[in-house]
Order: sequence, then structure tokens, then C-alpha cells
Amino acid sequence: MDSSHRSGCPINLTLEVLGDRWSLLVIRDLMFGNRRHFRELLTQSEEGIASNILADRLRRLVEASMVSRRKEPGYKQKALYSLTEPAIQLVPLFAQMGAWGRRHLPVSADMNVRAQLLEEGGAAMWEAFMNELRWLHLGAARPRGASVANRLRSAYEAWAAKHPLTAEAPS
Amino acid sequence: MDSSHRSGCPINLTLEVLGDRWSLLVIRDLMFGNRRHFRELLTQSEEGIASNILADRLRRLVEASMVSRRKEPGYKQKALYSLTEPAIQLVPLFAQMGAWGRRHLPVSADMNVRAQLLEEGGAAMWEAFMNELRWLHLGAARPRGASVANRLRSAYEAWAAKHPLTAEAPS
Repeated sequence: MDSSHRSGCPINLTLEVLGDRWSLLVIRDLMFGNRRHFRELLTQSEEGIASNILADRLRRLVEASMVSRRKEPGYKQKALYSLTEPAIQLVPLFAQMGAWGRRHLPVSADMNVRAQLLEEGGAAMWEAFMNELRWLHLGAARPRGASVANRLRSAYEAWAAKHPLTAEAPS
Repeated sequence: MDSSHRSGCPINLTLEVLGDRWSLLVIRDLMFGNRRHFRELLTQSEEGIASNILADRLRRLVEASMVSRRKEPGYKQKALYSLTEPAIQLVPLFAQMGAWGRRHLPVSADMNVRAQLLEEGGAAMWEAFMNELRWLHLGAARPRGASVANRLRSAYEAWAAKHPLTAEAPS
């Protein structure tokens, strides 16, 4: 075991990499919101992440090989952020987190719709979503079949159409 | 949505409750190590948790209704800590965390054995383990069938018997 780690327990090591609330929220927004640029991640943040925290967490995630960063051709300073394969494999963990949250915490109705769909879709849907992320973030072949991101969005829109007064903008 | 939360997203809310590395490690030790007293949680901590951090996190977990605390009869100051039902329902999340950690991080061989068993056991084993925790922590009826905690311990001991030089004490 690398002596820079407090223990070799897989749960401890996972928490050493991910055990910061903002890091996981940034991964969530890259993953479920397909927000790939600093500005989108900043201005569309539901939790109102501060600019310096976002910059710090993106830097740390790049260092930990959870996120890759590349300059976009034609733009001087614009960087595109992508999830790496290990980060994409966090989909089941996020699904479990959403499932637990909607059961035990005061989740808002609009956000609940998508978490429920992802929970009920189970392992097959998580696998399909990971393949979709490999296409969007890693340049893998575009998977066949209906887009999971679109299914999540449609479920939200169907809900919002029935609840026009309480609906907020989708993330 | 309660205005004390940054957003109603189920992932954000879960992280607001659990998004502290030490809190989750304390729950892990209550859950997988059945360490129920302050002193055990302190002295057996693989990560060397500090006394003041342990006291603070236990207090916060009690406030968040993830852990309950009661005085043990006959002991003046000794408190018994138990997981609540919401905390017990974190078993699948810990299993996913362990599964992810063992795939992507430098997990030590002895710790890997149990994480692998829990991953491969899947939803059925997680459910059985939750029922066992309901017996140990909530006073529910003792479940029939082999104890999952014992199976995890046996798997570790079988591994340790084959690797006498590298094995450390089981948690």
C-alpha cells in the first residue's frame, strides 16, 4: 500500500479521492448535465458553486485522473473538460446515492423524477448510460438504442408539463 | 424544498449529510466492524481518526439521525452507538464504493477480499446484511441463514491463512 494513504481499505481510498462534496457535484454536472466548460459549470450550478472552488476542484480532479482537460481548437483559452473511464464508472455509485437521497431526504419533486427513473432502470440502464458517456467523453463509438440522457430529460419534461407552476429549468 | 439546503437534488442532499470523509468512515466501522463504543472506534481505526474528530462526527451523525446513542445500563459513562434505519440502507452505497475502489485504487490485498465478496454477492447479499444490521442495531428479529458478517470474516481468515506474512489483524 502506498504510504500516502491512511489505509488500504477500498472505501477509505475511494473517499480519499472523492470525499469532497464539491468534487462529486462537479462530476455530477459533467455526467448528467453534460456541462463541459468552466462557464457552464459555474453559471448553471444549482448549488451556486464559487468560481475559486470550481477552479480548485477541476484542478484536483485532473490531478487525480478523474477528469481530463484539453484546449479546444480555435478558441484561445477555452478548455473542454471530459470524464475519464474511472469517473464514468461512478454511474452506479451516483445512482445509489440518488436512490438513497430520494428515500430519506427532502428531494425536490422535479429532481426526483430523474433519480427515480435511474434507480428503476437498474444495472442495465447504468451500463447503457456509461456507454453513452464513453461516446460523449472518450470518443468511443456511439451506442445504439435510445439515449439514456434523453430518456431522463423526457421524463423530466413530461413531469414539468403536468406541473407548470412548480417546475424549474432542467439541469 | 427546505431553504437550508443548497439544492433539492438527491445527490446534493445525500452529500450534504454524508459528504465528509470521516463521517462515512465512522459509519463503515459501525457497520462492517460492529464497533459500537467510542473507545473501539478510536483505537481500532485503520485510518487513525483523532479523538476530537471522532467525537465531533459522532455528534453530527446523531444530530442527522444516522446514528443513535444510548447509555448502557450499569456503566456510568459508556454509551452504545447504533446505526439507524437510514444508515443501514447505505449498505449498497458502501458496496458500490468498495467495488469502485478495488477496481481503480491501490487497495491492500487483505481488505480487497471482503470488498470483492460483498461486490460479487450483489443485491441479495446486501439485503441479507441489512437484515443482520437491523438485528444488531435496531433489535429486529435475528435473520435466518448464514451471517454475512461471518462470511466476510471467514473469507478474510481463509485469505490470511494463505498469506501469513502480509496479513494484518482483521477489522
